[in-house]
Amino acid sequence: MIKTRSLKHVLCLVCSIILNIFFLFKVGGEWNLSWSKTAATEAEAVAAIPCSGHGRAYLDGLVLDGNKGPVCECNTCYGGPDCSQFFPDCSANANGGDPLFLEPFWMQHAASSALLVAGWHRMSYSYDDQSTISKELERHIRKLHDIVGNAATEGRYVVFGAGSTQLLSAAVYALSPDNSSSPARVVASIPFYPVYEMQTDFFQSVDFHFQGDTSFWKNNSDTDTEIIEFVTSPNNPDGQLNTAVLHGPNVKEIYDHAYYWPHFTAIPAPADGDVMIFTLSKLTGHAGSRFGWAIIKDKDIYQRMLTYLTLNTLGVSKDSQLRALKLLKVVLATGGREIFEFGHETMRKRWEKLNKVISTSKRFSLQKITPKYCTYFQQIRGASPAYGWLKCENQEDKHCYAVLQADANITGRQGSIFFAEDRYVRLSLIRSQDDFDLLLDKLNGVVAGEEGARTM
Amino acid sequence: MIKTRSLKHVLCLVCSIILNIFFLFKVGGEWNLSWSKTAATEAEAVAAIPCSGHGRAYLDGLVLDGNKGPVCECNTCYGGPDCSQFFPDCSANANGGDPLFLEPFWMQHAASSALLVAGWHRMSYSYDDQSTISKELERHIRKLHDIVGNAATEGRYVVFGAGSTQLLSAAVYALSPDNSSSPARVVASIPFYPVYEMQTDFFQSVDFHFQGDTSFWKNNSDTDTEIIEFVTSPNNPDGQLNTAVLHGPNVKEIYDHAYYWPHFTAIPAPADGDVMIFTLSKLTGHAGSRFGWAIIKDKDIYQRMLTYLTLNTLGVSKDSQLRALKLLKVVLATGGREIFEFGHETMRKRWEKLNKVISTSKRFSLQKITPKYCTYFQQIRGASPAYGWLKCENQEDKHCYAVLQADANITGRQGSIFFAEDRYVRLSLIRSQDDFDLLLDKLNGVVAGEEGARTM
Repeated sequence: MIKTRSLKHVLCLVCSIILNIFFLFKVGGEWNLSWSKTAATEAEAVAAIPCSGHGRAYLDGLVLDGNKGPVCECNTCYGGPDCSQFFPDCSANANGGDPLFLEPFWMQHAASSALLVAGWHRMSYSYDDQSTISKELERHIRKLHDIVGNAATEGRYVVFGAGSTQLLSAAVYALSPDNSSSPARVVASIPFYPVYEMQTDFFQSVDFHFQGDTSFWKNNSDTDTEIIEFVTSPNNPDGQLNTAVLHGPNVKEIYDHAYYWPHFTAIPAPADGDVMIFTLSKLTGHAGSRFGWAIIKDKDIYQRMLTYLTLNTLGVSKDSQLRALKLLKVVLATGGREIFEFGHETMRKRWEKLNKVISTSKRFSLQKITPKYCTYFQQIRGASPAYGWLKCENQEDKHCYAVLQADANITGRQGSIFFAEDRYVRLSLIRSQDDFDLLLDKLNGVVAGEEGARTM
Repeated sequence: MIKTRSLKHVLCLVCSIILNIFFLFKVGGEWNLSWSKTAATEAEAVAAIPCSGHGRAYLDGLVLDGNKGPVCECNTCYGGPDCSQFFPDCSANANGGDPLFLEPFWMQHAASSALLVAGWHRMSYSYDDQSTISKELERHIRKLHDIVGNAATEGRYVVFGAGSTQLLSAAVYALSPDNSSSPARVVASIPFYPVYEMQTDFFQSVDFHFQGDTSFWKNNSDTDTEIIEFVTSPNNPDGQLNTAVLHGPNVKEIYDHAYYWPHFTAIPAPADGDVMIFTLSKLTGHAGSRFGWAIIKDKDIYQRMLTYLTLNTLGVSKDSQLRALKLLKVVLATGGREIFEFGHETMRKRWEKLNKVISTSKRFSLQKITPKYCTYFQQIRGASPAYGWLKCENQEDKHCYAVLQADANITGRQGSIFFAEDRYVRLSLIRSQDDFDLLLDKLNGVVAGEEGARTM
């Protein structure tokens, strides 16, 4: 009797000790978390809100009356409280350049990319060295360019901006003459990113004016007036690796390399321009963080850009810089391999699918991008541009945007926005998988309906 | 024998069960944290780095070779690996407006102000409603103004900017005429915040020019030219509740209310200007986050400011907006009571101490600020300005900045920077406690050394 009871006690003891050990292992070092616990719990709770794979809830999302957590924010054409409703008649969004194709990558890397910000983090205007530029972040950016081989950084200066947007106008200011009787001419090659013109015109400076397409200035004999040429490589909208068109002692280039990453293009060689602009938006996909950087050869230009950025915004948010650092650490952990393989694979597949549909059409065509040797992947890689530059081939389809709207229920972006013919439309391929799938589906429909379309 | 052994087993079992219960309670809901754990642990480890109370380590601080964590970043005049070394000969920094007086508040509110950002948080350029302005944050800002009673928000529009810095120039652009033959005159009342002039001149727009002090334009009969008057209330540098000086159909005001919070001034009534600018920097002390907002009466002006902010930076970093929301939630949790009592008490004490020293001096004097009834605290509150506006009274002390440097080893900011006489110096009172203590100590020294100084 006593023996049986004793045996029971031993059994209970063993169970309890196993539980002790389980707790010790399960809990790990975590049981000593203190002030960070609430924030961590809150973030995990929001991330766990089910949105059917067609949306996600955010920490700062709308909280409806009666709800405990924020609402699901659904992808285009999805709705309902958990984004499970699909609206088949809704227009496919191929308009904006939201780089959500990388969102799944970050969801897969939740642990390494999460960031806990203390309430007292970096309250100062400046870092310890009195600059507004995080030296740790700058070091990581230089390291990334070295590894990817897409830009020369040695001996160059680096400034940070609120995305490439702010840096583009900072560069124009820095390269323009001061109080000259002839303001600088700002030009770009059609088709080009419209912000170049919008910024230059809106800020109405006495020091520069937008003067349209580079072709007007090719045989220009006036070498007294400074010319600032935007060179976008790969180009937005058509993905071509553009080079400078104008040359001469009075010509300066601003290289917009937003898309010069292995996601979107082969990297033939490190870019080497005097002023080169990059952005986190098209590297990690974090457009919302508004973080970009410029690599500058000349010290004087660097100083002028820095002055612009200081007077404009007193530098870039320390919160964005901290976030960028965290994300770049994840990118660098595998020498960029994981994110660039993910990015390139996603974009290449999308481009192939798009081409497959369009190749059966007589009505539409796409730009041609020749595969090139990529020094980063060390092999020839298929094209994977960020945008399709679609052309309506029929004589009467002068307004390709309207054609796509009416016949396919697709919203692209008009060619005229890029100063090209409206026979062209830009189709964004970097949005969410839902957006791309819908675009492809609607394109399939309209192409299949073509009279005499080639059968697939 | 068996009985004793059985008793031992029971004792062990009880201990083990107690340990399990301890684990359950200690760990609480935390043991089911997953992907957020690493980030939380990392942040707590950095926060635990000991910097002797004269500095702090940051997540994105420099990591020296051989060190595991980032280095301590020390307050001015402190150094060494743990900031424990004091350099008594070092100059007291009363120069910049770094609002670190609020840092201890956030350290005391570590749990409620911590923020965990998921890797995929807000990658889009815009929020769900296609704007670049978080509706949740806007709602909290409006609520805060309602509670504090420092600004009318009903029926007004709100835009966000990268601190007040970006909003100041956005407002000038928005209020200037387009392509008019006579550009707007931008003016302010001396002494004024120099950024008004620096921005206006640097951006060299055809639409506006800086035209100095308001007094020149008081009796101006030219009503065809638009005038934009900066009204800073409380004023930087002298803390006065300025009102508009110029009036007329061609005069528009930009109200810079950066310091219109109970920390720095009594709140006599809600501000009601057409364009009012606020910033997180001087409310929560997070200057590094570069977040500010404008409250605008007129829809057209609102649209123009929005266009500026969009073309300039595509709106404000979503990371800054998320951080601002978190901080405002802490502020609002007690209806502002905790932070404003902390802020006002800190600033009032500093002002009193400064006055006590200066009142014994014949050589220096300070601006007078009359206590006013504060509708927020519902009582008359003593003055608590952000800056001392110090005057050197001796005829020969024309360069008060140099006098303070040479005789007291204090670095202030020259009066001429604010377009006033160099007989004045601005002393920043909003910096860290270390900076203020050092300033006071050095002032005490120089005043005590005055010939015939009144004894305290």
